Amino acid sequence: MMLSEMSRDELLKFKADVQKDYDEFKAKGLTLNMARGKPSSEQLDLAMKMLAAVNSFDADYKASDGTDCRNYGGLDGIVDAKNLFAPMLGVSNDELIVCGNSSLNIMYDMIARCIIFGVDGVQKPWKDCEKVKWLCPCPGYDRHFAICESFGFELIPIPMHDDGPDMDMIEKLVAEDDAIKGIWCVPMYANPTGITYSDEVVRRFANLKPKAKDFRIFWDNAYCIHHLTDTPDKLLNLLDECKKVGSEDMVYMFASTSKITFAGGGIAVMAASEKNVKYIKSLMTVQTIGYDKINQLRHAKFFGSYEGLTEHMKKHRDIIAPRFKVVLDTLDKEIAPLGIATWTKPNGGYFISFDAMEGCAKRIVSLCKEAGVVLTGAGATFPYGKDPKDSNIRIAPTFPPVDELKLAAKLFTDAVKLASAEKLLGELN
Amino acid sequence: MMLSEMSRDELLKFKADVQKDYDEFKAKGLTLNMARGKPSSEQLDLAMKMLAAVNSFDADYKASDGTDCRNYGGLDGIVDAKNLFAPMLGVSNDELIVCGNSSLNIMYDMIARCIIFGVDGVQKPWKDCEKVKWLCPCPGYDRHFAICESFGFELIPIPMHDDGPDMDMIEKLVAEDDAIKGIWCVPMYANPTGITYSDEVVRRFANLKPKAKDFRIFWDNAYCIHHLTDTPDKLLNLLDECKKVGSEDMVYMFASTSKITFAGGGIAVMAASEKNVKYIKSLMTVQTIGYDKINQLRHAKFFGSYEGLTEHMKKHRDIIAPRFKVVLDTLDKEIAPLGIATWTKPNGGYFISFDAMEGCAKRIVSLCKEAGVVLTGAGATFPYGKDPKDSNIRIAPTFPPVDELKLAAKLFTDAVKLASAEKLLGELN
Repeated sequence: MMLSEMSRDELLKFKADVQKDYDEFKAKGLTLNMARGKPSSEQLDLAMKMLAAVNSFDADYKASDGTDCRNYGGLDGIVDAKNLFAPMLGVSNDELIVCGNSSLNIMYDMIARCIIFGVDGVQKPWKDCEKVKWLCPCPGYDRHFAICESFGFELIPIPMHDDGPDMDMIEKLVAEDDAIKGIWCVPMYANPTGITYSDEVVRRFANLKPKAKDFRIFWDNAYCIHHLTDTPDKLLNLLDECKKVGSEDMVYMFASTSKITFAGGGIAVMAASEKNVKYIKSLMTVQTIGYDKINQLRHAKFFGSYEGLTEHMKKHRDIIAPRFKVVLDTLDKEIAPLGIATWTKPNGGYFISFDAMEGCAKRIVSLCKEAGVVLTGAGATFPYGKDPKDSNIRIAPTFPPVDELKLAAKLFTDAVKLASAEKLLGELN
Repeated sequence: MMLSEMSRDELLKFKADVQKDYDEFKAKGLTLNMARGKPSSEQLDLAMKMLAAVNSFDADYKASDGTDCRNYGGLDGIVDAKNLFAPMLGVSNDELIVCGNSSLNIMYDMIARCIIFGVDGVQKPWKDCEKVKWLCPCPGYDRHFAICESFGFELIPIPMHDDGPDMDMIEKLVAEDDAIKGIWCVPMYANPTGITYSDEVVRRFANLKPKAKDFRIFWDNAYCIHHLTDTPDKLLNLLDECKKVGSEDMVYMFASTSKITFAGGGIAVMAASEKNVKYIKSLMTVQTIGYDKINQLRHAKFFGSYEGLTEHMKKHRDIIAPRFKVVLDTLDKEIAPLGIATWTKPNGGYFISFDAMEGCAKRIVSLCKEAGVVLTGAGATFPYGKDPKDSNIRIAPTFPPVDELKLAAKLFTDAVKLASAEKLLGELN
């Protein structure tokens, strides 16, 4: 029965039953976490052999061009790593920079460069602009937003649809306002909605006509090969589409192996037009002599090729697809009949985006926390941490073991039911 | 016989003899490099076993506090790495941040933070200052200077003495001019002079009374345990001295294992007052989720303790001390009797600083290059690459094998002799 169709007495009875179940959970003193998109131990185990890929004089420490990976040099990455990652982003080696352990760090550095030096050495540095505004499709990735907030930018929320962000709104805004300097995109298996941008959306991005010549698309393709099904989503290559219309300098692309090998111990990469890469390297060469080439070589040797990399991802899928299923099955069983929420069923990535009744998200997260289940803070998926509807919750099912996840998912549905009943009973502030 | 005491005929004869030797070298078509402070292959071999320190399920991938080093988290480094490096800089774990692979990168980031956010969240960000000036003891490290140049700072050269930079000048300048925001220091086995700051110099640094409240000492202790003798230099701990007078927020300290384990594949650290560390971490947490903890663990396991680290340095000394000796012996034999140059005889570090007759450095570097020996560019050790006397040359003896180094050193002395003779004959521009 739909909760909205219940009488007051039925609602009170419903709430009391759920409360009982919730209290039993709470009494167990659980400590569970569905907050962050962290790989599970089983996933990390998959890459353990990589650590032995360069571990002695037998396993040669030289790149295939003879570079001693133990010594200085190689600003933009060893050729073996370039060969591995260029196909992942669909770019040439000259359009790729292989970096250190964190794509977040290279996105941050990229914006810091734009602030201090400008996007290309020609346009005015953003520090000298009266105001910098940034488009934030949301729900989105809290750490993206946090970067812009820390730099004092004005964040403009953009609604997300099933095929990507609201392009009508984006086209209009960037054409009108030259203070808008960038946009965050997670184009494939988006964080947190799990959707993949349609071909039309990608083409409309390539064809943007921003008033600001130094407007840049930050294309964080974090989940580009993180499929959960046999029929994975497909994403058009933005850089290719841009080249068709001469807008290839408008995009910076990012990815990493944080959820392929080790989180924090992987390899991050960025890609851009050759012109952009040349300019970025001219600044990078002052910042560092180079990134950790031994870890680059480790990755290249372990996977052997891009095909090896995509094969490896199937093992990840085998581990995390059942976790997504636990959460989705629990939601289907416990919440769907009640008509009190909607959620996404992604074909890849790391998250389920859950939309509760308006005004319920904070209460749900709070109820879960009291019972020992940590969720991403309500509102975190919106700029400034403020979800105008207080509705969206990001669920991260990958990290907990399946048995724990079952408990956490059930507890979550209790919290959703309780908060929804409270809302319908007029008990919520 | 001193070159300056020779008659014109004697000089012409001297020059002709040297020219013959030089031409014979040149005919060999050598390709030798004494330009950069790179470790030799033999030194890198010393750390190969570190790569096996974390390479399987047997070699546990957890830090001693249970942290899974393969997953996200641990912004300021794992406890095992802190325990290893805190004694190296003489600080507490709370005063230390263990970072990624490059200390240059963390120095750069530190300055970028000061530009965008200010030194402590209270003082005005440097981007909003009309002018930023920086003190550069020289000869010094070209990459330090390059960072400041790229940020558009005005670089002020400070003469180096045997006990450190000219403190009279520094005290006077920082007291008068609040546009002066920082100074580069390589306090131990300085790059390139090899000298170590005296206790008095360190104390005078601690007691600086800068007009700019956001003046910071960038204390790059890159060679703090890189001794070449049984009687190593000793450096007073600047942070300790600062605490005595309440100036502990004035200093940022840096070091790395680039010349201990792998160059570009090591661990960089920074240290500062707890207040500074807290503020830096508040900005860092937006920039990255954390650095590569697996490599931190590798280092901690391989060395076991700080004592293990210092023991390891003796093996480096065994490899590079003979290389320094080759160069110094050649200089003593070939150049000393002629009275045409002076040079340093460091107790540690990576460089010999060579001062030719005024106006000869560029010519010497050029002559070497023509004969296949690459040196650091003349002038590189000064701000803007301009040595006002065109006299200083940085010699880096660590990288080439000893037999090649003998050739390179001999060729270098031929070039010095030729240029000096040209100068005395009035042939140089």
